[in-house]
Amino acid sequence: MKKLLVIGIGAGNPDYITMQAVKALNQVDVFFLMDKGQSKDKLIDLRREICERYITGHDYRFVEAHSPERERGEVDYKSSVDDLNLAKQQTFERLINEELSDSQFGGFLVWGDPALYDSTIRILQAIQASGACGFEFEVIPGITSVQALAAQHKVPLNQIGRSVEITTGRRLAAGQVSDADSLVVMLDAQDAFHQVVDQDTEIYWGAYLGTPDEILISGKLKDVADEIERVRKAARLANGWIMDTYLLRKP
Amino acid sequence: MKKLLVIGIGAGNPDYITMQAVKALNQVDVFFLMDKGQSKDKLIDLRREICERYITGHDYRFVEAHSPERERGEVDYKSSVDDLNLAKQQTFERLINEELSDSQFGGFLVWGDPALYDSTIRILQAIQASGACGFEFEVIPGITSVQALAAQHKVPLNQIGRSVEITTGRRLAAGQVSDADSLVVMLDAQDAFHQVVDQDTEIYWGAYLGTPDEILISGKLKDVADEIERVRKAARLANGWIMDTYLLRKP
Ligand SMILES: C[S@@+](CC[C@H](N)C(=O)[O-])C[C@H]1O[C@@H](n2cnc3c(N)ncnc32)[C@H](O)[C@@H]1O
Ligand SMILES: C[S@@+](CC[C@H](N)C(=O)[O-])C[C@H]1O[C@@H](n2cnc3c(N)ncnc32)[C@H](O)[C@@H]1O
Repeated sequence: MKKLLVIGIGAGNPDYITMQAVKALNQVDVFFLMDKGQSKDKLIDLRREICERYITGHDYRFVEAHSPERERGEVDYKSSVDDLNLAKQQTFERLINEELSDSQFGGFLVWGDPALYDSTIRILQAIQASGACGFEFEVIPGITSVQALAAQHKVPLNQIGRSVEITTGRRLAAGQVSDADSLVVMLDAQDAFHQVVDQDTEIYWGAYLGTPDEILISGKLKDVADEIERVRKAARLANGWIMDTYLLRKP
Repeated sequence: MKKLLVIGIGAGNPDYITMQAVKALNQVDVFFLMDKGQSKDKLIDLRREICERYITGHDYRFVEAHSPERERGEVDYKSSVDDLNLAKQQTFERLINEELSDSQFGGFLVWGDPALYDSTIRILQAIQASGACGFEFEVIPGITSVQALAAQHKVPLNQIGRSVEITTGRRLAAGQVSDADSLVVMLDAQDAFHQVVDQDTEIYWGAYLGTPDEILISGKLKDVADEIERVRKAARLANGWIMDTYLLRKP
């Protein structure tokens, strides 16, 4: 039986890797690299670096797959992601069938934790359900950007006995969030924090968390929202891409 | 300056420890052990085991502090936690003042991630704000029980483009949750999943995650809710305590 390991590598700092992930890395024969877009090179480099640093005395190789880009613009988000995942599913099936021999281990190095806003698990489940190729898979958790954010700002994610909602910039911009007093926003392409009405809300913002380029800003929205917008724009311009996330805490 | 490291050790599997945590462990001179209640011995043993396994060529010692128990019963949850944290704050101040000399490193080994339903960060911030003793602190993230749950069940936490709410059994029982289609429930002392109206909701339940005693049950509430209640009661009886968490996913 072929075996796939979906390995969370943490979201930024190479030291976020867990012992469990290191053990898993050392079992993998073929790593599938699926990144796309402008952040591609840097993120693929980090994965190669992690393998070089932590794999000892075990042969492995990389297979880079052309990962399709999501259609942007006026299309429905959910259905464009669905289309994308269908295309990815076909790519994954091909990789598993062609690049992996029986009883070999394939590895996916997932940024952060595979359970959070990542499609790898969903796609593998869809392939298993379709019966298109036979394999088992395991999931190895990794430090998420949410945890990196909280750690670097030294703040708890929740208030005592209260809820935390993790959501997307898209949902915040559309007003599709609950009234949880702690709201973590990811995948924000549009400075959705400007939508928050109560300007006394505290924001803990972080970009490129855990990396040498890390930027942290925190304060009340009324004091720092414009600064974040400015710094964010400049950083995206300088690097060609940005990864950022933030915690909004109601007063 | 005294330095404190708040180190997330992951929630169960000793291999959940990160490289960053291992490096931090190796800097600590004095570990403060604060567990309480029936799970105490097992959790303290695991901490000692982690130190033995990962600290190399560095002297350290443990200080066990009597950690006050939260008052149960008819008291308001928030204020009983507040009282508890005030007592803990005094304990922490005493430990930092008496057990740590200048320029030494103190360490708190926090179960899971320090940012999630844990009071260590909040207490250290309160001490810093009070000016009662001078120190710096750093937070090192760790794999949460939420991530262990998702990994062991091989499910994503979120649906595509949707939110995830992390909450407590107390809030679920009181109906104080949003309509997020993915709800993670922690700290549930009362089988609050029985409160969920839609019996087609999927539940992914896990106890003692990442440990040799791990139990996983998943399915539609109408099919598995009673089984979970039964297994949970039996496990708590057998072990004297239980740690469990679950993901509820609306159909
Ligand atoms: C597709 S999601 C993947 C999340 C990832 N699986 C995790 O566990 O963090 C990408 C989003 O994660 C956030 N993100 C990932 N890495 C980050 C980092 N190092 N700093 C800030 N935000 C990050 C950003 O919000 C980004 O839009
Ligand atoms: C006080 S909170 C601490 C959470 C911890 N900081 C974390 O990151 O997971 C304790 C709750 O976490 C959950 N929990 C912690 N460890 C667990 C485990 N190994 N298996 C299942 N649930 C766990 C349970 O819901 C428990 O009531």
